[in-house]
Amino acid sequence: MAEENKTALSQFRETIHKIKSYEEALGVLYWDLRTGAPRKGMDTRSEAIGMLSGDMFKLQTSPELGEWLSALEQKGTYENLSEIDQRLVTETRKDYDRSVKIPPKLYQEYVVIAAQTENKWEEAKAENDYESFRPYLDKVISYTSQFIDLWGAKATRYDTLLDQYEPGMTVAELDHVFGGLREKLVPLAAAIAASPHQPDKSFLRQSFDKEAQKSFSLYILEQMGYDFEAGRLDESAHPFATGLNPGDVRITTRYLADDVTSALFGTIHEGGHALYEQNIMPELTGTTLSTGTSMGIHESQSRFWENVIGRSRPFWERYFGELQRRFPGQLDVSVDQFYRGNNTVQPSLIRIEADELTYNLHIIIRYEIEKLIFNSGAKAADLPEIWNDKYKEYLGIVPPTYAEGVLQDVHWSGGAFGYFPSYSLGNMYAAQFADTMERELPGMWSLVGEGNLIPIKEWLKERIYRYGKLRTPSELVSSVTGKPLDPQYLVDYLTKKYTDIYKL
Amino acid sequence: MAEENKTALSQFRETIHKIKSYEEALGVLYWDLRTGAPRKGMDTRSEAIGMLSGDMFKLQTSPELGEWLSALEQKGTYENLSEIDQRLVTETRKDYDRSVKIPPKLYQEYVVIAAQTENKWEEAKAENDYESFRPYLDKVISYTSQFIDLWGAKATRYDTLLDQYEPGMTVAELDHVFGGLREKLVPLAAAIAASPHQPDKSFLRQSFDKEAQKSFSLYILEQMGYDFEAGRLDESAHPFATGLNPGDVRITTRYLADDVTSALFGTIHEGGHALYEQNIMPELTGTTLSTGTSMGIHESQSRFWENVIGRSRPFWERYFGELQRRFPGQLDVSVDQFYRGNNTVQPSLIRIEADELTYNLHIIIRYEIEKLIFNSGAKAADLPEIWNDKYKEYLGIVPPTYAEGVLQDVHWSGGAFGYFPSYSLGNMYAAQFADTMERELPGMWSLVGEGNLIPIKEWLKERIYRYGKLRTPSELVSSVTGKPLDPQYLVDYLTKKYTDIYKL
Repeated sequence: MAEENKTALSQFRETIHKIKSYEEALGVLYWDLRTGAPRKGMDTRSEAIGMLSGDMFKLQTSPELGEWLSALEQKGTYENLSEIDQRLVTETRKDYDRSVKIPPKLYQEYVVIAAQTENKWEEAKAENDYESFRPYLDKVISYTSQFIDLWGAKATRYDTLLDQYEPGMTVAELDHVFGGLREKLVPLAAAIAASPHQPDKSFLRQSFDKEAQKSFSLYILEQMGYDFEAGRLDESAHPFATGLNPGDVRITTRYLADDVTSALFGTIHEGGHALYEQNIMPELTGTTLSTGTSMGIHESQSRFWENVIGRSRPFWERYFGELQRRFPGQLDVSVDQFYRGNNTVQPSLIRIEADELTYNLHIIIRYEIEKLIFNSGAKAADLPEIWNDKYKEYLGIVPPTYAEGVLQDVHWSGGAFGYFPSYSLGNMYAAQFADTMERELPGMWSLVGEGNLIPIKEWLKERIYRYGKLRTPSELVSSVTGKPLDPQYLVDYLTKKYTDIYKL
Repeated sequence: MAEENKTALSQFRETIHKIKSYEEALGVLYWDLRTGAPRKGMDTRSEAIGMLSGDMFKLQTSPELGEWLSALEQKGTYENLSEIDQRLVTETRKDYDRSVKIPPKLYQEYVVIAAQTENKWEEAKAENDYESFRPYLDKVISYTSQFIDLWGAKATRYDTLLDQYEPGMTVAELDHVFGGLREKLVPLAAAIAASPHQPDKSFLRQSFDKEAQKSFSLYILEQMGYDFEAGRLDESAHPFATGLNPGDVRITTRYLADDVTSALFGTIHEGGHALYEQNIMPELTGTTLSTGTSMGIHESQSRFWENVIGRSRPFWERYFGELQRRFPGQLDVSVDQFYRGNNTVQPSLIRIEADELTYNLHIIIRYEIEKLIFNSGAKAADLPEIWNDKYKEYLGIVPPTYAEGVLQDVHWSGGAFGYFPSYSLGNMYAAQFADTMERELPGMWSLVGEGNLIPIKEWLKERIYRYGKLRTPSELVSSVTGKPLDPQYLVDYLTKKYTDIYKL
């Protein structure tokens, strides 16, 4: 490699390392804000966060970075880079082009509008007042549209938004997979509703000691192979996981006094995110590749652990006794009753409270609405009616209020259009990965039944976790499962599971 | 003011704000490291801290900052600045000159050496091995000497080091005040040792419930007027207070299972530091003046609350019942016994375990040794003998091991020469402030006896806290007490207190 390109490479790598250090520092500040930072310090803290974010943005969009990228992309240079450097160049180029296309002034305006809209959303939801929120939402939509213009529309305008969260994902592919999913899940949900074998879950609603809940959550995390020397469990209003570096991946949960499994499944979910981030190969540490490859793949890991493993019959055959022991006299039901009680299906209005099956229908509705906004010009004024019609059609219920309908999620207020599909992609990826695992890891379900979860974690580490962003989502799915994303795995998984539970 | 100077001022202020934001972000990262950050993430975290510190240092030593300072210092400009801006210019000039005089390469070498020396110190102390530590300490001394050369010696070479922690403090002044102190305290300690009225403190050593200790610590903090919406109490191996901004001033403590007052007095001490930082005037927020004006003044506030208030008889007349209630059956002694038990004087080897009186002798010994090193060329090899001779002379005891002698403190390993005097300066300032308070706040001790501590906090806020770094230590002492620092106040306070307790 020519001397000048060696210099470009070392300066490029140094800048990447700096960007990653900023991300890590900001990660600690955000974690702190959400786990107990004192209220009165928040305004000044926000200024410090703004300053660091601004410095990081300058670094990410500096002309020098553009020049180093161009030098490293040259024919004769790129091919001689290591696999990691090649991927770093490709990923950084993508982020760079995205960022430099937005004039800083426009972006700053947008950040303010989005913050105002989030505040307004909170009020509007509390007061069930869509009308006052509508003009704010239209503004966020309009800014997002301007960004699409600046970035350039892909196959459709909405494709440009999808690609932010799930690189390479398209409307064409999602129409296909979500179409397949909807077609099978709507009748499955109907069959479940018509079943005379409805599980009882009333025993889950009692008063459960918080310390005992916490002790059980910690125990399960340890069973999953979560490394407590490389993380910690705290509490926050909204549970989250944050990977600061592979040696410091923190999770939070929220304990409900009257629900014995809410915090537990939340912890397993965040624990799944955390296992991903804790097990990325050390060669990527200090680079922007040391994180999950997409929102959808990340969500596949949280949902694999929460649903595929954590809500499985073998899991509870092993762990229900441990749970019972922590709540003496409170859980006098059979393992079967407990398992079924934690796997009920019921069409409902609120996405975040939905079961494993109908959850996907909530997502498909949002996906279809986002397409209508960016590809067909739907306005904020149109959304409540579209929302209600789709809930009627797919779930058979209509929200009595805006708060339980179109106003329930924060995502759109903050401009996160294109994010929702990740959740269902996560379910589909998880089912597809699980199918491969069942074939490649013989006796997988016996391991779960014995409480030997480590081989499962190790399999995921070798096949998925370690690569971080070194593989794109579609490369990863193909390399792990030998096939592209296919919704049939999720359909089969859900059909098999609920046919058994509801004796269909 | 000329247009160009207006620009210089606004760019100067912006840079100061940025420096302060870096300090705040770094403050959160350090707090996190010391209150539970996972072990395995520390190496990568240190790199992030190094990156931020490096960026901050670049800002603090940038040629532009030098130019803005020069512009603002010009005759005709400086006089037209606000009081705050004038002080910011003076303070920043001082830091700037200090920082730019050290070549970055030399400083980086020194940082590495100091870190190695701290590690070596930990080993050496554990193994009571001075010989292997000696060459490391000599290196730190040699770097510090080079820094004095670069900064330029003041009246004596050691004066240059003192000024870092206590701006304006000199060897001449310290020789005077420490001389006065030593002359009075050595015979007072001897009289106490000879008294037949030695208090019993055996009742303090039992097993005390940690949660009850915590609840009492929180209660006392609240009584002191610590604002929990602008702070929080955590645990760490070494208690500390950190002022991130006036709305976020955190403290930590450490609970000992077999000592009912160790964590409590530690919490009151850190609480005193915290009250200072929480009550700095909002006009200084976001500037480098929004912190305590010196180590000595800061220490005066922690020691005022811990010793003058927290170890006073009226304090326990009010609060002993509250403490007893939290430990039923464990503290069946009278208030007088409890008060005297917490105020015993006993020459001892370890500074951090020393009582209010002999503590000052520990400090004077370190001060005299530091002077010998930097003003008379003493080497690391000379220190154990000097140390032991001085302990023999001032405290009448000789350490049987290096670990209990010259190796007991971390300060020198990290190059913090000139820091120790702050602790005794704090005691002297505290006594002098208390004398003024007694005269200006009539019934001060009745307020303490009634548990009405807020007027005391408010007096300190109005006279001391609010000014942050807007006044220098000597300006502050003069403006509050009408006199320069005078050791006689501490001598009088200790004499009165122990004459009563030991019936001298």
